Amino acid sequence: MNSNASSPLASQAVAPVFWLTGLSGAGKSTLAEGASQHLFASGIKCILIDGDVLRAGLSSDLGFTAEDRAENVRRAAEIASLCANASIVTFVSLVSPFEVDRKRARQIVGDKFHEIFVDASFPVCSERDVKGLYKRAAEGKIPHFTGLDSPYERPRSAELVIDTMANDLKTCVDMLVNYAYQNGVGDRIHP
Amino acid sequence: MNSNASSPLASQAVAPVFWLTGLSGAGKSTLAEGASQHLFASGIKCILIDGDVLRAGLSSDLGFTAEDRAENVRRAAEIASLCANASIVTFVSLVSPFEVDRKRARQIVGDKFHEIFVDASFPVCSERDVKGLYKRAAEGKIPHFTGLDSPYERPRSAELVIDTMANDLKTCVDMLVNYAYQNGVGDRIHP
Repeated sequence: MNSNASSPLASQAVAPVFWLTGLSGAGKSTLAEGASQHLFASGIKCILIDGDVLRAGLSSDLGFTAEDRAENVRRAAEIASLCANASIVTFVSLVSPFEVDRKRARQIVGDKFHEIFVDASFPVCSERDVKGLYKRAAEGKIPHFTGLDSPYERPRSAELVIDTMANDLKTCVDMLVNYAYQNGVGDRIHP
Repeated sequence: MNSNASSPLASQAVAPVFWLTGLSGAGKSTLAEGASQHLFASGIKCILIDGDVLRAGLSSDLGFTAEDRAENVRRAAEIASLCANASIVTFVSLVSPFEVDRKRARQIVGDKFHEIFVDASFPVCSERDVKGLYKRAAEGKIPHFTGLDSPYERPRSAELVIDTMANDLKTCVDMLVNYAYQNGVGDRIHP
């Protein structure tokens, strides 16, 4: 058998990666799901790499120390790169609190990396507390909780900031979808 | 912002995972690329998770001991699961020499896992030696080389066996594509 066939996938355009960072409860996954749903309905193939899902599977061996968070971010970036190279529009929803880790993610993914800062303050996220994490963290039951005993470094070079305190869900999703269309989605990235 | 939106992606069908196992040089990646190209041309979204690509990126921290191979297989399976759950037809091209690791991969992926044994003997692969690995391994320069000083456990429960010694490339790709169509590809898995 001839194993010298050139890669057929090389002809596929690299899709963009939209990397959503922000505090737990800021709305990252909700926005990424909303945007994915919108694009999927338009026939655009996309994937959501969600921090909670990663923690339950690929990164189930990792904790929440700075070192383990760095490794978790690295893995998410590597998967995002694989998917983007397969022409799949990729949303990553990950707290990714440290600038150095996000920079590394940008390096791994390359030019198609877009940092989206999903902005909601600690008090607001603590008030929402959709998953009950803030209550548990306040009780001292979650070490290294971002915003409490582990810092969140606000992005200084995000391509887009979505303020989920000042805007309702639909407006926020529209912002993300519009940004996606303006930045590589729909550029012949699907068959 | 309302963060209680149900997952839009839940409505997408889980796509199949075709897990190609076999010796280095057996033709796994060539077959997976050929099949991916065929499906992509038919408008079916797919991804190829290739062992060499993984080793250069996500699994660059791993070696080739049994333990590290197990972790590499686990990571590939977790990514495959993510992609399949996003309705993306997934090909994995990975030596994955140990039965116990492949069984774990099957457990991680679930019902949509299909084990494809790409069968070519050690002498034939050694003769092909597309990447020059067999020459270097024979010189003792690659420890834990599968088929030499690390075993390859032939699958006992593969859903499909493709013999790349007895069949030419086109026949082998056709076998894989036909199998894919008979096993979940095209079942409304793309928009």
